[in-house]
Amino acid sequence: MKKAIGDSNFIEKAMAYSSISNSKMIRAGLIIASGKLNKNIHEDSLITLATAIELIHTYSLIHDDLPSMDDDDFRRGKKSSHVKFGEANAILSGDALQALAYEVICDDKKLSSNNKIKAIKLISNACGKNGMVLGQHLDIESESKDLSVKAVENIHSLKTGKLIECSVMLGQINNNKKITEALKIFGKKIGLAFQITDDILEATSDQSILGKNSDSDTKNNKSTYIKVIGIEEAKKKSNKLSASAIKSLEELGLKETNILIELAKYISYREK
Amino acid sequence: MKKAIGDSNFIEKAMAYSSISNSKMIRAGLIIASGKLNKNIHEDSLITLATAIELIHTYSLIHDDLPSMDDDDFRRGKKSSHVKFGEANAILSGDALQALAYEVICDDKKLSSNNKIKAIKLISNACGKNGMVLGQHLDIESESKDLSVKAVENIHSLKTGKLIECSVMLGQINNNKKITEALKIFGKKIGLAFQITDDILEATSDQSILGKNSDSDTKNNKSTYIKVIGIEEAKKKSNKLSASAIKSLEELGLKETNILIELAKYISYREK
Repeated sequence: MKKAIGDSNFIEKAMAYSSISNSKMIRAGLIIASGKLNKNIHEDSLITLATAIELIHTYSLIHDDLPSMDDDDFRRGKKSSHVKFGEANAILSGDALQALAYEVICDDKKLSSNNKIKAIKLISNACGKNGMVLGQHLDIESESKDLSVKAVENIHSLKTGKLIECSVMLGQINNNKKITEALKIFGKKIGLAFQITDDILEATSDQSILGKNSDSDTKNNKSTYIKVIGIEEAKKKSNKLSASAIKSLEELGLKETNILIELAKYISYREK
Repeated sequence: MKKAIGDSNFIEKAMAYSSISNSKMIRAGLIIASGKLNKNIHEDSLITLATAIELIHTYSLIHDDLPSMDDDDFRRGKKSSHVKFGEANAILSGDALQALAYEVICDDKKLSSNNKIKAIKLISNACGKNGMVLGQHLDIESESKDLSVKAVENIHSLKTGKLIECSVMLGQINNNKKITEALKIFGKKIGLAFQITDDILEATSDQSILGKNSDSDTKNNKSTYIKVIGIEEAKKKSNKLSASAIKSLEELGLKETNILIELAKYISYREK
């Protein structure tokens, strides 16, 4: 008898494997915390947007880990997607996660269509050719090259910063201009602080704590902050950025900034 | 002197290389032709939607051609993206093309936000885990397996049919129900006819006409219509589907169906 082939849920399984794992969910946390300062968005919609951004982030990790990219076989405390499901399925599950991110926003019950479009525009712009994807391209190109601090900063702000900043902005959809502007500055600063701390942790932590290969940057001879300014200067820079980000929030004089302030501290002082 | 690295336009160049090439643009054509039957959509917006669908289609071709997928080094009459730009950049440019498809819809000046969301929902659903991506997974899984006609049909309807059907439906956004329903049936039928004709052409044409490797299916031992029912039966099936699709349009009794009818004939009788 001719058989039906494949498992029609296989791609969903691969998507879930990478999504439902030991993630810090910082981007989701930033959306929820930013949304606490926004009376014009429903809590349910913040969950929708948080889901969307984590789907995008997960897709980017799956693709970044591929053999032709950073070639990392360990992520979030378990095997990378391509090690577990094969390279083709890892690429496909990343592709499907990106599509799903936009689809969950379309399906939200509380956001107006106008605000859905604002959210989709923010995300597609942050993760595309002028954002995350370009950052990953430049990051790969930087291997074995001797870069300026400015060049490293540019790569980081594109590769990681854009999506962090986007997360903060997603919580601000439909909010008043004064708060949104302050949070834009906050988002930019913690985006950079986040990546500097990532560089420090990759250079100083071990794999069991980090949940991913801790020697990946060295192996790929990546241009990190550590390489261009050293660990001590990198720590100082991250803390300074975090303090400055917190200051821009405190100036708003709103008690609802407390969770964002805690997140900014965590981003700079975290140990994994 | 420390140098700035990379070419910030490199990813855009890779995206353009694959997008602006010798494409038949059938999906774009279907949107425009379908839109001729819809008084509630502006011509400029049809161009936007046609652009979006061709970006999605191009991303899928770049990823399908990758070494870990179909491993094709020739596409649209020139080198595949990964042969020209390397595997990592091919994956990234596909990722960025997907994001750009949603972004161009957000940026459209004539569609209402409601209709933009309808378009993004149609596309993200058709190209994701229950559509094109699942079809590509099942297609790869089908290699060297002995499939039933029904299983081959399922793969085809997901891998190619969903996006063809989606193109016809994009032209119908905001249109009256009667026409939309008829075009849904039309889209489903020509979607399948399109893939059957593709299978026939892959088995019978040479690379210089086709603009892509003509022996790819055989090389990968894919389950095609040719393999399960033979060339003659496949031709009959494609022509029958196309005739039936045309009939469902003729029943509408509208002269604006003429371009869609020509496209349906082309889809089944084309030579490349």
